[in-house]
Amino acid sequence: MSAAKLKIGCAGLGRMGKRHALNFLQRTPRAQLVAVSTPDDTELEWAKVHLAPSGVALYKNYDDMLKHEGLEAIVVASATAVHAEQAIKAIEADKHVLCEKPLSTSVEVSQTVLDAAAKKPQLKVMCGFSRRFDASYRDAYNKMSTGALGTPSVLRSQTCDKLDPSGFFVAYAEFSGGIFVDCSIHDIDLTLWFFGADSKVKTVSAVGITAVEPDLRKHNDRDNAVGLVEFYNGKVAHFYASRMMAAGQEDTTEIIGTKGKVTVNAQPALNLVNVFDGTGIRREIPQHYYDRFEYAFVTEANEFTACCLENTPVPVKLEGAVQAVRIGAALQEAMITGQKIFFDESGKRVEKTRL
Amino acid sequence: MSAAKLKIGCAGLGRMGKRHALNFLQRTPRAQLVAVSTPDDTELEWAKVHLAPSGVALYKNYDDMLKHEGLEAIVVASATAVHAEQAIKAIEADKHVLCEKPLSTSVEVSQTVLDAAAKKPQLKVMCGFSRRFDASYRDAYNKMSTGALGTPSVLRSQTCDKLDPSGFFVAYAEFSGGIFVDCSIHDIDLTLWFFGADSKVKTVSAVGITAVEPDLRKHNDRDNAVGLVEFYNGKVAHFYASRMMAAGQEDTTEIIGTKGKVTVNAQPALNLVNVFDGTGIRREIPQHYYDRFEYAFVTEANEFTACCLENTPVPVKLEGAVQAVRIGAALQEAMITGQKIFFDESGKRVEKTRL
Amino acid sequence: MSAAKLKIGCAGLGRMGKRHALNFLQRTPRAQLVAVSTPDDTELEWAKVHLAPSGVALYKNYDDMLKHEGLEAIVVASATAVHAEQAIKAIEADKHVLCEKPLSTSVEVSQTVLDAAAKKPQLKVMCGFSRRFDASYRDAYNKMSTGALGTPSVLRSQTCDKLDPSGFFVAYAEFSGGIFVDCSIHDIDLTLWFFGADSKVKTVSAVGITAVEPDLRKHNDRDNAVGLVEFYNGKVAHFYASRMMAAGQEDTTEIIGTKGKVTVNAQPALNLVNVFDGTGIRREIPQHYYDRFEYAFVTEANEFTACCLENTPVPVKLEGAVQAVRIGAALQEAMITGQKIFFDESGKRVEKTRL
Amino acid sequence: MSAAKLKIGCAGLGRMGKRHALNFLQRTPRAQLVAVSTPDDTELEWAKVHLAPSGVALYKNYDDMLKHEGLEAIVVASATAVHAEQAIKAIEADKHVLCEKPLSTSVEVSQTVLDAAAKKPQLKVMCGFSRRFDASYRDAYNKMSTGALGTPSVLRSQTCDKLDPSGFFVAYAEFSGGIFVDCSIHDIDLTLWFFGADSKVKTVSAVGITAVEPDLRKHNDRDNAVGLVEFYNGKVAHFYASRMMAAGQEDTTEIIGTKGKVTVNAQPALNLVNVFDGTGIRREIPQHYYDRFEYAFVTEANEFTACCLENTPVPVKLEGAVQAVRIGAALQEAMITGQKIFFDESGKRVEKTRL
Repeated sequence: MSAAKLKIGCAGLGRMGKRHALNFLQRTPRAQLVAVSTPDDTELEWAKVHLAPSGVALYKNYDDMLKHEGLEAIVVASATAVHAEQAIKAIEADKHVLCEKPLSTSVEVSQTVLDAAAKKPQLKVMCGFSRRFDASYRDAYNKMSTGALGTPSVLRSQTCDKLDPSGFFVAYAEFSGGIFVDCSIHDIDLTLWFFGADSKVKTVSAVGITAVEPDLRKHNDRDNAVGLVEFYNGKVAHFYASRMMAAGQEDTTEIIGTKGKVTVNAQPALNLVNVFDGTGIRREIPQHYYDRFEYAFVTEANEFTACCLENTPVPVKLEGAVQAVRIGAALQEAMITGQKIFFDESGKRVEKTRL
Repeated sequence: MSAAKLKIGCAGLGRMGKRHALNFLQRTPRAQLVAVSTPDDTELEWAKVHLAPSGVALYKNYDDMLKHEGLEAIVVASATAVHAEQAIKAIEADKHVLCEKPLSTSVEVSQTVLDAAAKKPQLKVMCGFSRRFDASYRDAYNKMSTGALGTPSVLRSQTCDKLDPSGFFVAYAEFSGGIFVDCSIHDIDLTLWFFGADSKVKTVSAVGITAVEPDLRKHNDRDNAVGLVEFYNGKVAHFYASRMMAAGQEDTTEIIGTKGKVTVNAQPALNLVNVFDGTGIRREIPQHYYDRFEYAFVTEANEFTACCLENTPVPVKLEGAVQAVRIGAALQEAMITGQKIFFDESGKRVEKTRL
Repeated sequence: MSAAKLKIGCAGLGRMGKRHALNFLQRTPRAQLVAVSTPDDTELEWAKVHLAPSGVALYKNYDDMLKHEGLEAIVVASATAVHAEQAIKAIEADKHVLCEKPLSTSVEVSQTVLDAAAKKPQLKVMCGFSRRFDASYRDAYNKMSTGALGTPSVLRSQTCDKLDPSGFFVAYAEFSGGIFVDCSIHDIDLTLWFFGADSKVKTVSAVGITAVEPDLRKHNDRDNAVGLVEFYNGKVAHFYASRMMAAGQEDTTEIIGTKGKVTVNAQPALNLVNVFDGTGIRREIPQHYYDRFEYAFVTEANEFTACCLENTPVPVKLEGAVQAVRIGAALQEAMITGQKIFFDESGKRVEKTRL
Repeated sequence: MSAAKLKIGCAGLGRMGKRHALNFLQRTPRAQLVAVSTPDDTELEWAKVHLAPSGVALYKNYDDMLKHEGLEAIVVASATAVHAEQAIKAIEADKHVLCEKPLSTSVEVSQTVLDAAAKKPQLKVMCGFSRRFDASYRDAYNKMSTGALGTPSVLRSQTCDKLDPSGFFVAYAEFSGGIFVDCSIHDIDLTLWFFGADSKVKTVSAVGITAVEPDLRKHNDRDNAVGLVEFYNGKVAHFYASRMMAAGQEDTTEIIGTKGKVTVNAQPALNLVNVFDGTGIRREIPQHYYDRFEYAFVTEANEFTACCLENTPVPVKLEGAVQAVRIGAALQEAMITGQKIFFDESGKRVEKTRL
């Protein structure tokens, strides 16, 4: 007698995998988490405690999970290195796919996911850019869409992580694609959203430093990076990414139009509490990405589920995910080589653009 | 194979009833909404569409619902006038009870719920003071509890609703118990939480006006009210309640200690968006109570469920609910009669207290 | 060839006297500080260094200064106890007078200044309620005056000093008139400004505690006080005064109208700096009254000077200064006796008012 | 008997000239404005009304003013095009000089002022970077100087003007040196202050657009510009300048260190007023540069005066003024040519720097 629910499996049970699994299990009424897979024994132990009692099947092997009876969709939340491969396998097995960002740190590999999806137009395939599902970003977008801000022309956006003094992010940098691909990808995606998905990049320049972790240089990465992206439609975006924030996560965006501007998180706050003491007035801010965007992930799970059940278009087009990686990789290259990079209107690299 | 869930029924499907029903259905993983009851046909129609497909049984009669096979708990979310009666019936039928505030607008009737609960100590009976479950209030309470603010001595708190120009709140005032019982009850409950449940009232004074709705006077109510509550432990609280806010819901609290203070919602904001235009910088605020406290209600549902399943004490003691009504009613009386009211340390009315 | 300047003398060179003297010397282009008087030798020494080199005559005796050749005006900035006497002497000597608040802690004595001024209508006599000259309060008043907020109906205002752990304010309390006369007088004056000078008090109630300095009780004073003032025009004000703030000076006002509200200093800040560190985001706030209102005092000096030179009405009427002391004293009495006080529409004490 | 005052003359009585003249006349107690000069008849008329009555001599010719009896110092507040020439003439006439920024839009011309000053080491010659005198920037600098923020590594700063729909800034662009020299010069100066005057530029990149005023292109200027400046000491600055703000002047700076960060004006506000109405909570912001920095100019006048009278070093070294123009001009060139510009450690242009 119950309404039909989307039977979904979760690939990967690392930090984000656990969150996705629990969100689909407990906070997505129209979905039913039926299976999870992970090659990691510790993660499997966790699943035995937290998922199995709710009737979720556990798989050590991703391919086996894909054959789970009645499975309709997969959320790919494994290591970035296998995102594309697992997404493609799921598509080929006729499952809807919600894939964590990025599809891949490689533009070419990212494209293979698009190619696979193009062959199965009936499937819902979406890359999870969580900020698209955040209530504040949506409010900002809607306010811009009324025209009240005029033409959006300049976008400033930053993704800045709290300093992790353990040095974790040095090892992480080996596979992350670099700070522009790992962090700024969100800001780039926002730019494509607010400026329009058809915005064509004209030039890219960037500078990076290693203020706290010189060892990042061995992986061609930096701990603080600033970048400029100029578009052919007369718009410009500037980005800042950092691994060095003292207070917590500081993801801030400003969209500046010809008649006004809108900011998101220009005044970060964990909650509504202020403390007054001898040092002044103080508030805390979210410590990590998930503290800030938890509800966006829940909304993402619910909206992806609804699209699958109702056969409606996914809210974030897959093409943008490849374009975002392309821009992030160009910024990373511009930062590492020290050279400004130029593109013509077809997206081809050129020596110099017309002014 | 699934973990045990609390089988709960919801009494009443008005504005708050619908929310409680959906929260227990969709956002309380350890609970199972098995039944709802309402005498209202329109509400029943809503339930047929939104609850029945998920396997929830619908009852027109509350007493019938109480006999639902396997029912373990009830959330009472009906009209205030029947809160106490329904709560007592549920207790007598050996169900756990989460009752919307207030238990009753009458101190005596509220006390009957306590009396009934006292006979069934194995049952969990809680009055839903939602702010106790709000993350910001909890953070404020924890910060105070560290001792960093010194001794909490002065509390200022307000519950101020957005003006509803329909005049709805005039009719509502007939049964609400008045603005101090309906609105300030939350601030009073917070006072008992932050100052200690054993805080004894010494004097009560209040003033009210009808700035926008003179018709409230026929129900002995006001649209703006300020009140002072003095306690025997040397603490003092001042309250403001209003039906007249222009921007939205403004529920703000300040707890002032001898070494510092903490504020909750002194700078209201709907989200993290700011708009810059020719008029300056602007942000929106929550429009209604539920916009502000939605997640507190979800937490309340989950924590009540956990207490029932694990047989742990409920986080908000029932005694406080009666004491809050007692103080609210005294404020309302002080406002209407224009007289200051004095109590001795046993809580008895006196002509005058020692200074 | 220079434009005519107002020749002014300053009575008293204590904390506020020094400030007034320097403001008239250096920051009031149309005034010329020609003389100062103080019986205090240390203050005279200070004047020898800071004022005499600029040609300011020094007097040990106030009466002698009054005879200073060409003197046209006096700023009375001495101890409160002699405010009225010095103001009256100056009026009788045909000098314009700017008198620090309060005229006196006694209503009767304050009235004698009015009586003296009434006999010399050609003189400018003003009581220095500094907030009337503050740019933010004026902006708030102007915004209210457009009608955009509807009818101002509820006013909340607080004057809260930073805790001075030296216990200075215990000795000070002997002559201050009490916390409502010393601190809340500003909030009362604002109320008369925003609600209208003709607002008639109906009832007064108040509660005070000694959270940090029990010794205040020997001077019939308290360190934290809350009060309610109800007016016959259907408006109500609530006040909070404290000597116990941890972060600094917190003087905040809210004017709530039927269509909107305006706040002044609801988010205190010393300047435009925010610090982000491991504890969160922090800003400092003004430490003392003068940090917050320094420029208001400068404006006050300049506007008083202009009124004298141009024979225009002073911006703050003297009557209000007496009415503010009357209300402050009633609040203080209500706090100390624990009794609510009632007035009829003529301002006479009564046992009870009509409801 | 009066203390010695600095006899100063003001060159130019345009918008900034009037302000400087009045500041030295009325708000700089240790200075005496003795003369002003302007070739403009309207400005002379203004001076007859506002300055002459206070004994200020009026000159149509700058050279004549330089010969004014007893003149000791000059504030150069004329058109940018004559800043350098007038400053040099004053130096050669043995006058102290406070020169409005920039010394010149040309690096070479700016350098001639330095050269002239070098020959008269006894004179005080200062370029008026007003933000150096702003209380908030000074507080930020002091907080950084304690070491609490760690090593300052990334600086973000913007100078953004309110849109002037008259198109004034198109004509103005012909002589302004461009948006980076006119606006960002302040941000560049701040960078040299916070990062150290010896910071050597490694690379410069920039992008500009004309979102509201395409006609700026005829003067090789833009209405919105973003730029990156990389330094050899491992620090990086990013700038944003705009003529297009809707709400008012938005000059914001962030200094990010390895242990914390400090922001200046991240939450702009005209005053302490907030309005609550049906659109939410709103505050106004300063409309123009002088609204924001008025008191910084007063402080500048007073400190320059004190340096002259007491023969102490000026707080802002003249060398920085040339370096700031050099960087601004490089950013402007990078924006217009679309090319990234590289410097070696001696400041010489190179094709490419070592990575």
